[in-house]
Amino acid sequence: MTLNFIGLGVYDEKGITLYGLELAKNSDIIFLEKYTSIIPYLNIDSLEKIIGKKIIIIDRKFIEDGEIILKKAKDYNVSILTPGDPFIATTHIELRIRAEKQGIKVNIAHAPSIISVIPGEIGLQNYKFGRSATITFPDNYSEVPYDTLKQNLSLGLHTLFFLDLREDKYMSVNDGLAMLMEMENKRKENIITSDMLVIGIARVGGPNQFIKGGRISDVIKIDFGPPPHCIVIPGKLHFMEEEALIVFAKIDRELLKNRRI
Amino acid sequence: MTLNFIGLGVYDEKGITLYGLELAKNSDIIFLEKYTSIIPYLNIDSLEKIIGKKIIIIDRKFIEDGEIILKKAKDYNVSILTPGDPFIATTHIELRIRAEKQGIKVNIAHAPSIISVIPGEIGLQNYKFGRSATITFPDNYSEVPYDTLKQNLSLGLHTLFFLDLREDKYMSVNDGLAMLMEMENKRKENIITSDMLVIGIARVGGPNQFIKGGRISDVIKIDFGPPPHCIVIPGKLHFMEEEALIVFAKIDRELLKNRRI
Repeated sequence: MTLNFIGLGVYDEKGITLYGLELAKNSDIIFLEKYTSIIPYLNIDSLEKIIGKKIIIIDRKFIEDGEIILKKAKDYNVSILTPGDPFIATTHIELRIRAEKQGIKVNIAHAPSIISVIPGEIGLQNYKFGRSATITFPDNYSEVPYDTLKQNLSLGLHTLFFLDLREDKYMSVNDGLAMLMEMENKRKENIITSDMLVIGIARVGGPNQFIKGGRISDVIKIDFGPPPHCIVIPGKLHFMEEEALIVFAKIDRELLKNRRI
Repeated sequence: MTLNFIGLGVYDEKGITLYGLELAKNSDIIFLEKYTSIIPYLNIDSLEKIIGKKIIIIDRKFIEDGEIILKKAKDYNVSILTPGDPFIATTHIELRIRAEKQGIKVNIAHAPSIISVIPGEIGLQNYKFGRSATITFPDNYSEVPYDTLKQNLSLGLHTLFFLDLREDKYMSVNDGLAMLMEMENKRKENIITSDMLVIGIARVGGPNQFIKGGRISDVIKIDFGPPPHCIVIPGKLHFMEEEALIVFAKIDRELLKNRRI
C-alpha cells in the first residue's frame, strides 16, 4: 500500500497541512516520532481527535531499523508523523530510499520547517544562511560550531545554531552562548566576542514565541522560558534585514552600526 | 485588530496548515496574492469553500502600496494568503514591518516553502545549498545565475535556480538550461558543460510532481509538462545524497562517478 511521511510543523498540532491530515485520516497505522525535534505545544490527545485515530509513538531505533514499518506498509496505509518537515532531518531519507526500492508508494506531506520559519520570523534572507551546526552538551564537547561560524562569517553569511537535546534535557540560549564563549577561550581566534550581535529564539512559529537580539553579554542574561531554543548569529546585513532585526528581534539600532563584519 | 500572513504551500489549496485555516476562518477580509510564485493545482473556489469566505485577489502594487491593507487591519481581522511560506519571498517583510510599527498585531501561519521542499524531495542536504538565483527571460538577460553557480561550485555547494515567470508566461527547465548554455557561450569560463549533472523539477510537492536528473544534453530534451519548473545543479555530494539522487531523481549511477567537483 503506502508509506506516508507527514510533517507536523514547529509549534503545535495545528502545523499539519490539510493534505497531511487527509493522508493521516486515510491511514491504517499512524506512528509518531518526536526525537528529531521538539514541538513545544504538541498535544497528542488533541491530534488523535483531529485525525480520529490512535497514534503510536516510536523511537529512533524503530525508524532506523525500519523493518516493521516497511513490512506493514506492504499491506496497509502507514503514516509517520514527524516534527517540522519530514525531510529536513536526514534521518528519514534512508527509510524513504528503502521503501521506494521495495516498490512501496511513498507520499510526502511537507510542513513548515525550522529552516524556513527562523529566517522568516527574524527577517533574514534564507539564502544568506551558511551551514548550520548544533551546540552540544559539555560531555559531548565539539568545536564544530566554532569552525562553522568562522567560515560563515568569512563569507558574510548568517549562522543558525541548533541546541542539543537529550530526553528531557534541553540546552537554553544562555547555555549555548556560554558554550560559544568557552570555545573562544580555548581557541582564542577572536571570532566570538562578548559584544558580538546574536539573536536568541524560543518556541518559534506560533503565538508564544520569544525573540530577542543584542550583544552576547546582554542576551546571555535573558530568560527565554521553556524550550526549544536556538541561536542565530548574523553575517553581513542588507538594509532591509537591519530594519527587520530592529522590529522583530528588538535589537537596538545603535548596535547595528560599526559592526566588524 | 490583526494582520495575518498565511502560507498556502507549494502545490494546491491543501498546503495550508490547520493554524492557517483557523486564522482565515476568523478573518473579516481575505486577500490572496499569487504573483510571487505559482501553486499549480490551487483551486480558489475550493479554497473559498474550505474557509467559508470570499477571497479577493490582489496584485503586487496593492501589497507594495499597502495603505488599504494596513487601514483595514486597524479595524478588522485581515488575512493575506500567499504561495509557499509567507516570508521566504522578501516582498512581505516590509508590509509586516510597517504593520508592527503601527501597532497592528501580526500573526503568521507558516507553510511548506520551496526552499525546504526541493532539498527534501530530491534528497540533498538543505544546508549545503548556496545562494539561489532566478534565470530570467532573454529580454531581461542577466548573468547573475552564472556567477552564482560559479561561486557555489567553488565552495562545493548546491544551487537552486528559480525560473522566470510573467503573467501567463513561465520558463521551462528546457529553456532555463538553454539560457545557462548561452551564458557559457558568452563567458567561456568552462563552468557549464553539456555533460554537467542537473536536475529538472516540475510541480514539486504533491502527487503529480516530476523530477528527473542527468546530463544537461539529455535533460534538455525531456518534456516536464505544465509549470512551475525549477533546476538544481548539485555541488559536492555525500554518499547518502548520491543514493537519494539515484532513487528520487532517476539519475544513472554511472553519471555520479568521475564528476569534476
